[in-house]
Amino acid sequence: MVKHKTSALQESQGISNSEITNASSVAKIKSNRKVIPDIEHLVTGILNKDTAALSRGITLIESTNPEHSQKANKLLKACLPHANNSIRIGITGVPGVGKSTFIEAFGSFLTSIGKRVAVLAIDPSSSISKGSILGDKTRMEVLVKDKNAFIRPSAASDTLGGVARKTRESIILCEAAGFDIILIETVGVGQSETAVHSMVDFFLLLQLTGAGDELQGIKRGIIEMADAIVINKADGSNINLAKATVSDLKKILHLYNEKSSGWIPKVSSCSSIENKGISDIWNIIQEYIQITTKNQYFSTKRNEQNRFWLLETIKNELTHTFFNNETVKTELNNQLKLIEQNKTTPFAAAEYILNIKTKN
Amino acid sequence: MVKHKTSALQESQGISNSEITNASSVAKIKSNRKVIPDIEHLVTGILNKDTAALSRGITLIESTNPEHSQKANKLLKACLPHANNSIRIGITGVPGVGKSTFIEAFGSFLTSIGKRVAVLAIDPSSSISKGSILGDKTRMEVLVKDKNAFIRPSAASDTLGGVARKTRESIILCEAAGFDIILIETVGVGQSETAVHSMVDFFLLLQLTGAGDELQGIKRGIIEMADAIVINKADGSNINLAKATVSDLKKILHLYNEKSSGWIPKVSSCSSIENKGISDIWNIIQEYIQITTKNQYFSTKRNEQNRFWLLETIKNELTHTFFNNETVKTELNNQLKLIEQNKTTPFAAAEYILNIKTKN
Repeated sequence: MVKHKTSALQESQGISNSEITNASSVAKIKSNRKVIPDIEHLVTGILNKDTAALSRGITLIESTNPEHSQKANKLLKACLPHANNSIRIGITGVPGVGKSTFIEAFGSFLTSIGKRVAVLAIDPSSSISKGSILGDKTRMEVLVKDKNAFIRPSAASDTLGGVARKTRESIILCEAAGFDIILIETVGVGQSETAVHSMVDFFLLLQLTGAGDELQGIKRGIIEMADAIVINKADGSNINLAKATVSDLKKILHLYNEKSSGWIPKVSSCSSIENKGISDIWNIIQEYIQITTKNQYFSTKRNEQNRFWLLETIKNELTHTFFNNETVKTELNNQLKLIEQNKTTPFAAAEYILNIKTKN
Repeated sequence: MVKHKTSALQESQGISNSEITNASSVAKIKSNRKVIPDIEHLVTGILNKDTAALSRGITLIESTNPEHSQKANKLLKACLPHANNSIRIGITGVPGVGKSTFIEAFGSFLTSIGKRVAVLAIDPSSSISKGSILGDKTRMEVLVKDKNAFIRPSAASDTLGGVARKTRESIILCEAAGFDIILIETVGVGQSETAVHSMVDFFLLLQLTGAGDELQGIKRGIIEMADAIVINKADGSNINLAKATVSDLKKILHLYNEKSSGWIPKVSSCSSIENKGISDIWNIIQEYIQITTKNQYFSTKRNEQNRFWLLETIKNELTHTFFNNETVKTELNNQLKLIEQNKTTPFAAAEYILNIKTKN
């Protein structure tokens, strides 16, 4: 069979329903799937580390049905006391850097030392394509079969905020299901790195080797976020180049201010295909956890992240509701025209619109 | 007399009121100053290029008295049809880069070729110290006496948004008073560069020479904003170093994506003290205006800036009003505690607070 690089979720070839011959059974199974799962059952399942229950729980969280949303909140509340015990690691890097193969190698290493690993993703582009960066599970052949690993593609939503919220809530369910390590992958479209950065304990940037051009490939602002930069594909003829890149990046990192975590970002290299340098990365992360637990930055950061998401959600809701009001929409257009005609200033226009809305 | 580097506005030495002997005259003058100026008179004065009227107009805009604010809006409305005809240039750079001496040299050059130049400033730090980066007019000895120049220190306000608004409104008055070129200086504290960038046509970054360490001195995000980087103090033993820095910076700028303006940022050097390279900078700006007028980016950008300030003002007002509500303050603290205790999520907490507020 020819291997296509399309999403495994969209695969239809090779799936046969010949074993099920009773049409009414099929209908029954399908209808059962649509029933809202019983929350108590789900909670028990998740706490018992049942990944099928975890999957259904995340599907409930991702649902846009308002009735489901109430149930999802109940589920989250029940899971919360059992959450917060994992290490959350964000992984980013440009397409082609080898994120999937890295996660395959890193995740397999972690399960080999007794960890349970959940892999989530934030992919704002999937909102449009309804595809997903983690859909291509064929690239994670080993991890997908690993009973101590759980892989879930990115949620789809109209906004990055929506995707981020669903991912953040999924983290809670994964933690309640006893996963020690949560890997959150992002392709880095738009502000998605910032969203991931604000929900993880450790942020890892994957880079390729590059002679002197390192800066070109790195999106501004990402370096400041990174707790470690890892040069992937340090294998074959690439090894010496990787060493040079590591040394160059160390120099560049030296130019940045010290982080409030007291942590000095590390640069390392690895080969995901040859499974080399993978344990070093885990050592770096362990060192980070040790240092930031000791100086309490670890818990301070989580509290700050919670505060950030609370305020962000409120701000987004406030402005979203305001700007979606029909009167506001009309007045906004009118005022913009008046500004263009030099008849009012943006500030006077803002006051005018805020006044009109208050009266209504 | 010993020359102190304190604000000229706070100077008391050398000021004598011996010529005014009548105490009641002094009281009358002082009381007159407090009277709200007549708007029609102010408008006429400003349109007649009377800088005293312009100064009083800006003071009115900067006033926090609500009664003044209504008058200020009237004044702005009357000036608006005569505004928008200048070139607005933002100037930033770290302390010590020589912004004042540069503005002295550049401003004097501009008046020498027949331009009228207004110099404003955005200094959020002055909100606290009540000082001002342009207070030290002693560094602009020539420009301050130039009848075709107008220098105004930064407005003081509680927030950067407040300072920015007042500066943006001052631009309108300066333009109505016939100033062709508005220079807006900022020290670059916090987000002040972003604020200046969003109200100017051309953004100029002043840099010092530096052997290989150029990146260290440049705040992230500033390079992307700059339409030109000018190496100041390219004089004496610094000349060769300046040439090397220009060449290095050109290479670095090459790594960035092309701007939507179609403009490729320029790198140049100058000596403000020796008055060298100053006209080159004006040539760069003229070229920019020519290109962006032709491709209509110039007006598009101004419209986008207006839209930005309109939306920003509304968003700020909405969140400010919401978070200053006493019920919200109390509930926010309660919910944050519940989040820390793993009893709710930031998203559920946000919904809860928004619901409570809607009911009240």
